[in-house]
Amino acid sequence: MSRSPGRKQENHKISRELFVLTYGALVAQLCKEYEKDEDVNACLDRMGYSIGIRLIDDFLARSAVKKCRSYSETADMIAQVAFKMYLGVTPSVSCNSVTGNEFSLILDKNPLVDFVEELPAERASLCYCNLLCGVIRGALEMVHLAAEVSFLQDRLKGDAVTEIGITFLRKSEDRRHRRN
Amino acid sequence: MSRSPGRKQENHKISRELFVLTYGALVAQLCKEYEKDEDVNACLDRMGYSIGIRLIDDFLARSAVKKCRSYSETADMIAQVAFKMYLGVTPSVSCNSVTGNEFSLILDKNPLVDFVEELPAERASLCYCNLLCGVIRGALEMVHLAAEVSFLQDRLKGDAVTEIGITFLRKSEDRRHRRN
Repeated sequence: MSRSPGRKQENHKISRELFVLTYGALVAQLCKEYEKDEDVNACLDRMGYSIGIRLIDDFLARSAVKKCRSYSETADMIAQVAFKMYLGVTPSVSCNSVTGNEFSLILDKNPLVDFVEELPAERASLCYCNLLCGVIRGALEMVHLAAEVSFLQDRLKGDAVTEIGITFLRKSEDRRHRRN
Repeated sequence: MSRSPGRKQENHKISRELFVLTYGALVAQLCKEYEKDEDVNACLDRMGYSIGIRLIDDFLARSAVKKCRSYSETADMIAQVAFKMYLGVTPSVSCNSVTGNEFSLILDKNPLVDFVEELPAERASLCYCNLLCGVIRGALEMVHLAAEVSFLQDRLKGDAVTEIGITFLRKSEDRRHRRN
């Protein structure tokens, strides 16, 4: 069956709701399995990491973006291209450090929690969307950027916005050099 | 922030890949937890059911479809509107019975297995996409249609196509009447 390129591109698009509900089922399953929120968070991060290291190829192929020349460009790329492509939203980006390696992605609205009203009282430390941190960390690692990624604010926990912090670490060569 | 309706619609759309990989992580997690494939299949079906009974509202609101007047129309609606909307593919539909209550949705390509090459030998009975059966069953139940939904063929298991069978059961009033 032949398809025009435009049609093929459109076929990559799906409605967000099935994804959001499936993600909710995944988190609920992990909450059944692990008593401690920290264990659920760590598991979501690990899963996200595995996803990120696979998703990066898809991202590079479909976005056709050029190599970023700075951490700032990389943060903008994650917000404006990757989030838009995979979650249909565009967070705003702010730089949080004079050294220029700490950034925040700020989401007024987090699409992943569309069907979640609030966290249960006994799950107060759950980072519901922690998978996203792992995805970002894994994808960055595949383009040779080590980073720490975590939620700094979360509307599910009563904060005004949802904020994901990305701290780019020194290049691995630098670190290796320092260790030697 | 004001948005045109067109823009708002577009914001519901996301790339399929993150969903597909997240679904893979969910199945992998269940495979860790349950030794028997049958238990994984049942769990996926249950999760899907919970998703379906919530997703139907979104579907009815966004698709603006009218009430179906026959099982055949319902099967077409699932294939042409729901699958297209939520998975970006349109299965073909065939009717499998003279009584007109058994249908197959046939997928030449199953988008949920994009990143899956084949099932591991020890997971030969796994219905990898069983969540979908649960979703269909749950959504149908919310519009007062009882149905059995299961995979009849699966390309992951070496079949030529992936085929989901839907058998519409007698209306619940009929069944209640028969039981009395």
